[in-house]
Amino acid sequence: MYDELLEMIESNKLRPVKQILVEMHESDIAEILEHIENPASLVKVFKLLPKDMGAQVFSYVDTDIQEKLITALSSSELGPIIEEMYIDDAVDLVEEMPANMVEKILRASTPETRSTINKFLKYEDSTAGSIMTPEFVDVKDSMSVGDSIKRVKKLAENVETINVVYVTDGARVIKGVVSIRDLILANDNKKISDIMNDNVIYAETDTDQEEIARMFSEYDFLAMPIVDKEKRLVGIVTVDDVIDVIEEEASEDISVMAGVTPNEKPYLKTSVFRIWLNRFPWLMLLMISATFTGLIISKNETLLNNGIFGILLTSCIPMIMDTGGNAGGQASATIVRGIALGDVEFRDLFKVMLKEFLVSLLVGLSLAVVCFGKILLVDGVIFGTEGVKVGSAAIIASAMFFTIVIAKIVGCSLPLIAKKLKFDPAVMASPFITTIVDILSLLVYCFLATTFLM
Amino acid sequence: MYDELLEMIESNKLRPVKQILVEMHESDIAEILEHIENPASLVKVFKLLPKDMGAQVFSYVDTDIQEKLITALSSSELGPIIEEMYIDDAVDLVEEMPANMVEKILRASTPETRSTINKFLKYEDSTAGSIMTPEFVDVKDSMSVGDSIKRVKKLAENVETINVVYVTDGARVIKGVVSIRDLILANDNKKISDIMNDNVIYAETDTDQEEIARMFSEYDFLAMPIVDKEKRLVGIVTVDDVIDVIEEEASEDISVMAGVTPNEKPYLKTSVFRIWLNRFPWLMLLMISATFTGLIISKNETLLNNGIFGILLTSCIPMIMDTGGNAGGQASATIVRGIALGDVEFRDLFKVMLKEFLVSLLVGLSLAVVCFGKILLVDGVIFGTEGVKVGSAAIIASAMFFTIVIAKIVGCSLPLIAKKLKFDPAVMASPFITTIVDILSLLVYCFLATTFLM
Repeated sequence: MYDELLEMIESNKLRPVKQILVEMHESDIAEILEHIENPASLVKVFKLLPKDMGAQVFSYVDTDIQEKLITALSSSELGPIIEEMYIDDAVDLVEEMPANMVEKILRASTPETRSTINKFLKYEDSTAGSIMTPEFVDVKDSMSVGDSIKRVKKLAENVETINVVYVTDGARVIKGVVSIRDLILANDNKKISDIMNDNVIYAETDTDQEEIARMFSEYDFLAMPIVDKEKRLVGIVTVDDVIDVIEEEASEDISVMAGVTPNEKPYLKTSVFRIWLNRFPWLMLLMISATFTGLIISKNETLLNNGIFGILLTSCIPMIMDTGGNAGGQASATIVRGIALGDVEFRDLFKVMLKEFLVSLLVGLSLAVVCFGKILLVDGVIFGTEGVKVGSAAIIASAMFFTIVIAKIVGCSLPLIAKKLKFDPAVMASPFITTIVDILSLLVYCFLATTFLM
Repeated sequence: MYDELLEMIESNKLRPVKQILVEMHESDIAEILEHIENPASLVKVFKLLPKDMGAQVFSYVDTDIQEKLITALSSSELGPIIEEMYIDDAVDLVEEMPANMVEKILRASTPETRSTINKFLKYEDSTAGSIMTPEFVDVKDSMSVGDSIKRVKKLAENVETINVVYVTDGARVIKGVVSIRDLILANDNKKISDIMNDNVIYAETDTDQEEIARMFSEYDFLAMPIVDKEKRLVGIVTVDDVIDVIEEEASEDISVMAGVTPNEKPYLKTSVFRIWLNRFPWLMLLMISATFTGLIISKNETLLNNGIFGILLTSCIPMIMDTGGNAGGQASATIVRGIALGDVEFRDLFKVMLKEFLVSLLVGLSLAVVCFGKILLVDGVIFGTEGVKVGSAAIIASAMFFTIVIAKIVGCSLPLIAKKLKFDPAVMASPFITTIVDILSLLVYCFLATTFLM
């Protein structure tokens, strides 16, 4: 169906195109716009949309399309779209556009909108202030239910949600919340303060957006009031923006845990140079830190060059190091995710370390047994690797055991310590842990081998 | 404040405890219950709660507390709680409880609830059916707005949300949706079919929950209708459950990417044995597959035992392998996340491979240059490692280059191929990629060294 529509657009059949578009969801229209190759057609199709749909579609399309549209539209065409947009979307737009576009956007807005945008731009990135909107329904605590419903109806067109109504006093301080459900079920003559829930859960404008997301997930909110230092209601955060935050934070953690600088743009829209920039510094850092493993190996040259035993020991280095890295990565990823979900905190450090120590004993013992058997059977009998004896297999298996224990302890504690020191715990996951565990496990390995085999 | 309340509970001051509890959010009450040590106090405090709050709190507490409560409550006490719970929560409860508890729950329910629970238990795990609820407001397309509002008020107490009202025809087939906003703004005499949005976006009961989450995130839904094969409305999914799905899916991906079997329980509540079970098989599998790297090394013993060159080459193995693993992990994690967010699909395979090839050329070249310099300067001049010459450094740097190229191509393509074959793409991330890249990079390394140095 998309292809058909795109063909109709290309052949300039605008009337039927309009009829189809106005029936579609704004997010799907945005998707269509992103597939129009010809910039002139793009603008023509966009202009077909009614004003309110246009504003919504404009919020949904990617920044490159937004730029094209802003360039093509006149100030008098752009103005109404900006006015129709929700303030939080308009603020996002201004934050993402280059300076000349921002100028055009602000010039096209009314002075009132311009000043609101400027006010919201001041909230720091990743705080509640940066994702909230000032478009909500507020009623005074002295109002009746009937009057409140009238106010809901009056504001309904211009707010982001009417599902929750916020109650404030004369000084705009938050006093309670009422769901639209309770409002329409209540008797018109009742006072709002009698039916409202006065145990309001709110956050301040500088609360971290991750904390906001955790509260939404804990309390099953649809929207949450945000207040300033004087507890005056200044905005609300809605659940749709929280979903974006949750996905963004998970993406960020996954990126960092893979040693990649996080990037908000979709992969296919990110330039090769930007990808290089996001990946190269981490790889370089990790590569240079491998100098230590290299040093340990060359300092143990007499051990590793020691005939058939040397070859066996050398051939097992990748196995020991990889398994150590994987074991540490398992622990660190589990803890990093636990921190993100609010399940684990720094004060649990010793509980976590004890648990991982017990796990590492179990994992280490079972893996050492398998490792011992594997070396004797697979390497020794099947592949006939030289130097395989019960003694050498036992040394390698014990090195495996100690590597696992070290890896788990390092892997579980570093993310918690990082969190305490206000670093991103995800940085302390996989590649970083691997590098540390490599060094420690090689030291143990060479120490055991030197002590018992030479 | 929590500690104070817990103290009051311990000293059995139930009346003030009740006064405090009824003012709190159910999720916070659940948290309190989880901190009560004495099982008798737990039950006593729970019984203080009004019926509707009790049901909500019961949905929020962890399964171990649910078990304790079910055991302690009589059938006549348990029944009303089950009836008050949302059906989707009751179904989750039945799914998580051991058989004897399930029996008690079902015996305590009314025949009607029992049959609904049994019907919903049949929907497969991780599908729309498994997370939907049958408690929504539906109106007929022939009804007036006024009558619809009456119906909303009548059902309001017993549905999960009234924010969206669903319009069906005589055969219960979905025809449209109306937001509560449009409903209260419309004239009472209008027909519902005139104000409803008849371009309904819905899903079927067997749609994967990940797909549902993607639709919520794309369309900013608060709730979404779920239909059977005949397009009859059978339930709705609400955004609070979708947030849980999004967090669960991200946790699952992170687990799998770290080589850990996913686990829904919070870390601190998971037993040591269960953690061992979730981690050991992966480590064993990966350890055994390291047999190949071991074989490659022992087959190249003449190269690696070859005096000073051999030691230099051996000492650089960890660096080459780790950097390859990290480079591959970067690509696979990026693509796995892109697949999860719906940004990348299998049909983009060649676009992705081309992009990663270009990235790998940039990363490979820059890293090879740094590697060449690092070996000459750090290893050669600073640490005086023997065997460092321009020729040997150049061989190692070129091996680094080819390793990066191979790692990136393998890392980006395997997750997409896994997705196409209906495997979990996340399995094709870090530890798995590392193992494959280890083998390939060692082969290239030994081939280059043998060809040019011997």
